[in-house]
Amino acid sequence: MRTVFWEDGQLNMIDQRILPARFEVISYKDHKSVAAAIKDMVVRGAPAIGAAAAFGLALAGYESASSRTPDLLADLRAAAAVLKSARPTAVNLAWAVDRLMRCAESVKGSADQVRAAVLNEAQRLADEDVEINKRMAEHGAALIDDGDTIIHHCNTGSLATVDWGTALGVIHTAHEQGKRIHVLVDETRPRLQGARLTAWELEQYGIPYEIISDNMSGYFLKAGRVQKALFGADRVAANGDVANKIGTYMLSLAAHDNKVPVYAVVPTSTIDLSLAHGDLIPIEERNAEEVLGIELFGEPVAPKNAKARNPAFDVTPNRLLTGIVTENGVVYPPFDVNLAKAVR
Amino acid sequence: MRTVFWEDGQLNMIDQRILPARFEVISYKDHKSVAAAIKDMVVRGAPAIGAAAAFGLALAGYESASSRTPDLLADLRAAAAVLKSARPTAVNLAWAVDRLMRCAESVKGSADQVRAAVLNEAQRLADEDVEINKRMAEHGAALIDDGDTIIHHCNTGSLATVDWGTALGVIHTAHEQGKRIHVLVDETRPRLQGARLTAWELEQYGIPYEIISDNMSGYFLKAGRVQKALFGADRVAANGDVANKIGTYMLSLAAHDNKVPVYAVVPTSTIDLSLAHGDLIPIEERNAEEVLGIELFGEPVAPKNAKARNPAFDVTPNRLLTGIVTENGVVYPPFDVNLAKAVR
Repeated sequence: MRTVFWEDGQLNMIDQRILPARFEVISYKDHKSVAAAIKDMVVRGAPAIGAAAAFGLALAGYESASSRTPDLLADLRAAAAVLKSARPTAVNLAWAVDRLMRCAESVKGSADQVRAAVLNEAQRLADEDVEINKRMAEHGAALIDDGDTIIHHCNTGSLATVDWGTALGVIHTAHEQGKRIHVLVDETRPRLQGARLTAWELEQYGIPYEIISDNMSGYFLKAGRVQKALFGADRVAANGDVANKIGTYMLSLAAHDNKVPVYAVVPTSTIDLSLAHGDLIPIEERNAEEVLGIELFGEPVAPKNAKARNPAFDVTPNRLLTGIVTENGVVYPPFDVNLAKAVR
Repeated sequence: MRTVFWEDGQLNMIDQRILPARFEVISYKDHKSVAAAIKDMVVRGAPAIGAAAAFGLALAGYESASSRTPDLLADLRAAAAVLKSARPTAVNLAWAVDRLMRCAESVKGSADQVRAAVLNEAQRLADEDVEINKRMAEHGAALIDDGDTIIHHCNTGSLATVDWGTALGVIHTAHEQGKRIHVLVDETRPRLQGARLTAWELEQYGIPYEIISDNMSGYFLKAGRVQKALFGADRVAANGDVANKIGTYMLSLAAHDNKVPVYAVVPTSTIDLSLAHGDLIPIEERNAEEVLGIELFGEPVAPKNAKARNPAFDVTPNRLLTGIVTENGVVYPPFDVNLAKAVR
């Protein structure tokens, strides 16, 4: 089953907020609900958000009562703005919506033909995501050695994409190639996508893993127990600086300090050549409740009126990365030259 | 009120497992319960553990029915072994018990005189802890500037000591000196001593703070929003390598990468000159349940059969430290020369 899929005129998505406790699929009939679902993290992971927004725009086409093409395009443009503003950091969201709008605007035909073209393009984007992930996984798996222990951050698997995944797709493919792999799954505070989603996926695939808290990565890296660090990305700047889930920078620093190779695994749609470096990437700050809303052994954690900060992403400078795995191959430094070549 | 104190022939300790939800004091009448309380983290923080063990040995004296001094000493030696084995990393535990045993063995007198001498020495050790913390805090506060934002790891306050604290004592004293301070309290997974205990203490003192998850430190350090990183230690090797709560190494790396000064604040009783470097410090691995036992928004987090690792401490190499604050002043590199001078 895909994480994000179209069926019977509706967008269906696995509810990632309640996994692994419960497995539920939610159906969406309008683009505003899709934008809210992206914001609320029913769906998360840069490629999955892109596909969700693409289908969201297709829904907007069918929501619109306009019978004239220019009116429909105006409705789609309004919906595109709503969808693009759901979350700021992952560039795939804007990339997917922009691609769909270009498609809509290129149709020479009736409003219904535009509607059909948008849905068709959304479906193509989703199908391509799976195919691209498989190609990335092949390139990435070639970097993995039999017996490797890999530290992995956040969730980058099937749940983060339409299917197969980015960094976790690499691990999955290497596992299918018969390589023995052990994964140290960092829990990824505050939303715990590692402990909840990555651990759940690894259970399905039969890949051995252990959960650690994020701050334990340095211990295992320093002890020489880790051979690779892998993660995805929400946006890669032209110079190879990588915006990804909060904690990626500290993990990369610790890997680099111990000479352990660090790879970001990203489709080229995540590379934003319009931004010269990572400090230009907008970083979303989310609700403090995500930090404060945990319980330990059934007890609330923080004092009642405690305040918290919650930047959802950080930027890992390119100097800490060994390579960036894309569907077009592994890109090595100098990233400012080689990334532009990979985006073709 | 002290965190660890003697009253009516019993050892009393604030139960740190249930703060800030509830404030309870538990009384102990025998050394084995004290050892279990140390193991279970009713009391934690290297200096507080040392004082608890000291009073635990005093209890062992009164538990013993021996009327002959050599028999009592044998009972005390057995109790000392039980107490010292409660937790392996913090050297203050062994240091306190060894100091009490030397006192017991030096008494020329009756068994009852030995009992009284041990209790007296435990009380002296506890009183000294407070006095030493105040001296450390004065030395440390001189390093803090008006307007500083300080990242702080774990809990190093009154709760981690008999009273006043180590790193948090520095912050408390700087605050009392009228310096405006903002504290970024990292939550300190897995047991969340930052979010639970440090936040609770800062509330009492009226010092502004915000809670962050451990993996957010790098973001704020890189953004230039932090002027100092402060923490305590469980054991400092002769070369200045520091074993402290898991996550200290990654925090120090991130501070160092952004040229933010890093200070460990420790009484000289935490410095173990018998160990040449940090890799010789024993690191406790605790129960996986501490990692797996959290809930987010009322939902369990990890898959049912998930495994986890739980190293409770890590070692920060001396190259990442700006200085080590002791009751005898701030020690700067070269630590292998200057730490030995500070322990006098």
